Amino acid sequence: MSLKDYKKVKNIASLGGGPIGGGWSAFFLSQGYNVKAYLHDKKETEQFAKIIDTAWISLKELGTKNSGKKSNLTISHDLSDCLKDVDFVQESAPENLSLKQELYKDIGDILPSNIVIASSTSGLMMSDIQMKCSTPERTVVGHPFNPPYLLPLVEIVGGKKTEDKYVKWLYNFYQFSGKAPLILKKEIPGFIATRLQEALWREALHMVDNNEASPEDIDKALINGPAARMAVQGQCMAFHVACGEGGMATNLDQFGPALKLPWTRLKAPKLTKELRNKMVDGCYKMSKNKSFKKLAADRDAKIVEIIKTIQN
Amino acid sequence: MSLKDYKKVKNIASLGGGPIGGGWSAFFLSQGYNVKAYLHDKKETEQFAKIIDTAWISLKELGTKNSGKKSNLTISHDLSDCLKDVDFVQESAPENLSLKQELYKDIGDILPSNIVIASSTSGLMMSDIQMKCSTPERTVVGHPFNPPYLLPLVEIVGGKKTEDKYVKWLYNFYQFSGKAPLILKKEIPGFIATRLQEALWREALHMVDNNEASPEDIDKALINGPAARMAVQGQCMAFHVACGEGGMATNLDQFGPALKLPWTRLKAPKLTKELRNKMVDGCYKMSKNKSFKKLAADRDAKIVEIIKTIQN
Repeated sequence: MSLKDYKKVKNIASLGGGPIGGGWSAFFLSQGYNVKAYLHDKKETEQFAKIIDTAWISLKELGTKNSGKKSNLTISHDLSDCLKDVDFVQESAPENLSLKQELYKDIGDILPSNIVIASSTSGLMMSDIQMKCSTPERTVVGHPFNPPYLLPLVEIVGGKKTEDKYVKWLYNFYQFSGKAPLILKKEIPGFIATRLQEALWREALHMVDNNEASPEDIDKALINGPAARMAVQGQCMAFHVACGEGGMATNLDQFGPALKLPWTRLKAPKLTKELRNKMVDGCYKMSKNKSFKKLAADRDAKIVEIIKTIQN
Repeated sequence: MSLKDYKKVKNIASLGGGPIGGGWSAFFLSQGYNVKAYLHDKKETEQFAKIIDTAWISLKELGTKNSGKKSNLTISHDLSDCLKDVDFVQESAPENLSLKQELYKDIGDILPSNIVIASSTSGLMMSDIQMKCSTPERTVVGHPFNPPYLLPLVEIVGGKKTEDKYVKWLYNFYQFSGKAPLILKKEIPGFIATRLQEALWREALHMVDNNEASPEDIDKALINGPAARMAVQGQCMAFHVACGEGGMATNLDQFGPALKLPWTRLKAPKLTKELRNKMVDGCYKMSKNKSFKKLAADRDAKIVEIIKTIQN
């Protein structure tokens, strides 16, 4: 069977009832797709509806497609039923390798072999996930950034048995649907964005561990320092432009030797109970008495504005 | 002599004609202060005026104080003359320890001992800079984030001989003048924001070095992924809110063990000529045919919008 035209995708199966599966469902609905959501457990239904409702506020603000309606959602608790007549599958099951392997074994047998299956996994390799799948060539990682209904990034990478044409199809489909996809050159843990974030995060934990900074200091430093610039220019271009006419060459030739200074700590800090509590307490202190709902809503409203700004 | 009321500061000496000195001068002018700029070399005058003009576009957009005028600037090429009758000194001389030590020796003798001297140094320790100064107790690091006329962060830390009351004065003064100051708990290289940025930067260089990502991939991942959220919530609060009701505790208890995975590379990569060129070429590719002036102007306009968004 030949691959379906990515512009003609109508029905999407979104597997998983958590924040990622719910976020994807809301996003696809907003773009005018029919979404068939698979929830493993009926008890997830209420929480799932809440996720969609929360996401919808921001999606409307960013501009949903005219045909985008929450009522184009069908909820299913039966996998075979959910996969019927779908043109694309976005899988956001729990991050458990053997669970995903079994799931891909099932989907691989049920679903016609020309339909692409994308996994939202943030930490597993597709080469491992696809091991028990009878049709692994169309299984690809499509890792969104949280919250998936708002942040445009989707990192794409195939496993050892994935065929390149399905990777390209997925890139085209995400791009067409309004995301900012990125094909990875290699299958590496953490992909690109999470690796970068993780490097920063370890350094932050070291600072808290050594009483050099509180969580509040760290966030204040990021928010008032590099983050706004990073949202506009990333890091490479930010350094390129900051060095004036000499650009990145000046940056590396002048500051390159400083890379050898033992500035940033080399290994992850030991996560002692003390360090854990310092991080947790610091966050509660910063959040004052605001509920998580309010914190997330405030965050979303600002990210919407920033995204509008970045895209202008 | 007692410390001057930080609310009554009128005249500021800004030492240095580069982007940092020029950026500070423009910022202080916009806030209604009289600025006496010291330029070591008369040849710097034209470039200095350009920096002020560029900064002024964004400062006006963000809202200058009514009394803020570019005409409140005096340029001086004589240090003693520049320091006459000033209420505060912001030093942005080149990052050269022996040069700064000699400069602080001179300023320390000329300037009344109740006037705070802040250094914009990004890489040196105040304990070292103040070594030859006869009045080191009032010398403090006040490190801005580039571009200093736009980004609100200023990291404050004293040296071994600095007295605490001057550190507090500087915090109050920056806060009053419209900056977002942060007092560091310890004198550490790179302070907070640069350390965090440096950790991320090393990981980015490793990825390029290993052909895992291009500079363009890295910037695309940051811009479309974590940066917008980081501009709104930093990193600690971002993780806290992303984990829902469980917050940072869920984050650390669930993902803490993953910190031990050898995800991020541990040492800085060797800056080979090949790596250097890959970084440089990638940046030029991204910048297309836009001039540095245009790239910086575009950046500034967006940062203004993001800052407005963050502060709302």
